[in-house]
Amino acid sequence: MAAKIIDGTAIAAKVKEQIKEQVGQLKSQGKRVRLAAMLVGATAAGEMYAVRQGEACRAVGIEYELVKLPETATQAEVEAKIEALNRDPAVTGIMVHLPVPRHVDEARLQQKIELVKDVEGVNPGNLGMMVLGRAVNVPCTAMAAFELIKTTGVSLRGAEAVVVGASEIVGKPVALLLSDERATVQICRSATPDLAGHCRKADILVAAVGKAGIIGGDFIKDGAVVIDVGINRITLPDGTKRTVGDVDFDAAKEKAGWITPVPGGVGPMTVAMLLGNVVRGAKSN
Amino acid sequence: MAAKIIDGTAIAAKVKEQIKEQVGQLKSQGKRVRLAAMLVGATAAGEMYAVRQGEACRAVGIEYELVKLPETATQAEVEAKIEALNRDPAVTGIMVHLPVPRHVDEARLQQKIELVKDVEGVNPGNLGMMVLGRAVNVPCTAMAAFELIKTTGVSLRGAEAVVVGASEIVGKPVALLLSDERATVQICRSATPDLAGHCRKADILVAAVGKAGIIGGDFIKDGAVVIDVGINRITLPDGTKRTVGDVDFDAAKEKAGWITPVPGGVGPMTVAMLLGNVVRGAKSN
Repeated sequence: MAAKIIDGTAIAAKVKEQIKEQVGQLKSQGKRVRLAAMLVGATAAGEMYAVRQGEACRAVGIEYELVKLPETATQAEVEAKIEALNRDPAVTGIMVHLPVPRHVDEARLQQKIELVKDVEGVNPGNLGMMVLGRAVNVPCTAMAAFELIKTTGVSLRGAEAVVVGASEIVGKPVALLLSDERATVQICRSATPDLAGHCRKADILVAAVGKAGIIGGDFIKDGAVVIDVGINRITLPDGTKRTVGDVDFDAAKEKAGWITPVPGGVGPMTVAMLLGNVVRGAKSN
Repeated sequence: MAAKIIDGTAIAAKVKEQIKEQVGQLKSQGKRVRLAAMLVGATAAGEMYAVRQGEACRAVGIEYELVKLPETATQAEVEAKIEALNRDPAVTGIMVHLPVPRHVDEARLQQKIELVKDVEGVNPGNLGMMVLGRAVNVPCTAMAAFELIKTTGVSLRGAEAVVVGASEIVGKPVALLLSDERATVQICRSATPDLAGHCRKADILVAAVGKAGIIGGDFIKDGAVVIDVGINRITLPDGTKRTVGDVDFDAAKEKAGWITPVPGGVGPMTVAMLLGNVVRGAKSN
């Protein structure tokens, strides 16, 4: 049986439609919905990412403010700017583009962002609220993976879930979210002995390692929900480049019940989650 | 083979000796080491607990200040007191005894306690720092379970760990701490289908459910490390009362390699962890 494809692009488009509607309603109530993204010491890649982020915001009616600070900005200067954005009622979401220059401590910046405006969910306070089951903003990629699982309608209660990869903003949060839904959750790592054996028990398998094809077709339980968070650039034998996930998609889709493609799975949904968090910030105003 | 008993009382006594020495050194440097415990609307049980806590502090040279507020204290009044304690350089640890009166929001109180003074590790910021692998203060019971596991010398890297119970301040933190040591960690719940089968795969089994004897002898893998976080008061058929853990100790000790008793396991170690956190607060001064 070939798996149903979880079309992240289409699902994200629907979410964005809902967001657009909510933004319209908020505006009609006189509320601003605005993302302030900080770029410290801009690179070409950072600038390009910001341009696309601005387009994604404006497409749903969210105002976008790119706050550029020079490479020489001090920790105190960047923090002062974050505090000004915290105080600005027109700004409903704040994020800091990474990487920041070496002399700037990104963790200390993230801690400065007010919980409700921390749209990436990376302030330790937000991660802790998630541990407490009282999440305000959850890291967007983790939330995207979780929401895509929910679109399948598969029951999470009592399901066996395996998360491969224990990163702070993907693996761990996804594991906690699934546990809160009463799944039995196992956190594996790429180095877990008999990784294949562990994965084969999973009704829900989330791959978040960042290694192309580490999850083979024989890792998949029949009918499982497979969510591929990996985004890996590989070079094919003929020299062309391609973006692939952590899962061997062609082999896995023959066994899985549902599977996300890469690209077009978790990626577009992550963007939609970020936009949704900006709107949440506006609602709480 | 009968298991080695992990003697929490003896291990905690050693930890307290080390703490006493550290407190002595800090004092000789002119530093204060002081726990301020807040009791809002005191009950007899709360008062008695506080008395014993004060004794535990003084036994290692830590000053103990019991801050009593009347049952009628408002949220703002309790928060103002916490903020005063945050500012007081003589206070190196703050905790709020639970329960607080119904009209007081305990979570909002815990959020007010400065991370380094939050000796119970219950401020969401501290839980988040733990998710990020940069823990300041970790919830004491979780830390106690983790430290007792480490005393066995069993290698955590690649080990199969099962945590039964997904509470915010025990199950989830223990799971995250074990994952950071590169164990493969599964979080089960009392309602997990085939709980016994899951537990039997565990090289390290942490029971943190709060149900007397839910973990039977047949749940234990030969040679496993078994940490029993449960503290349950039960009434025996003859009417006498007894404190037991989540694990059927007598049966489990015939299969386990190491096992904590209840009482005398995680409980005394938890007290030691709290005292250690008060000292950490003083070191950072």
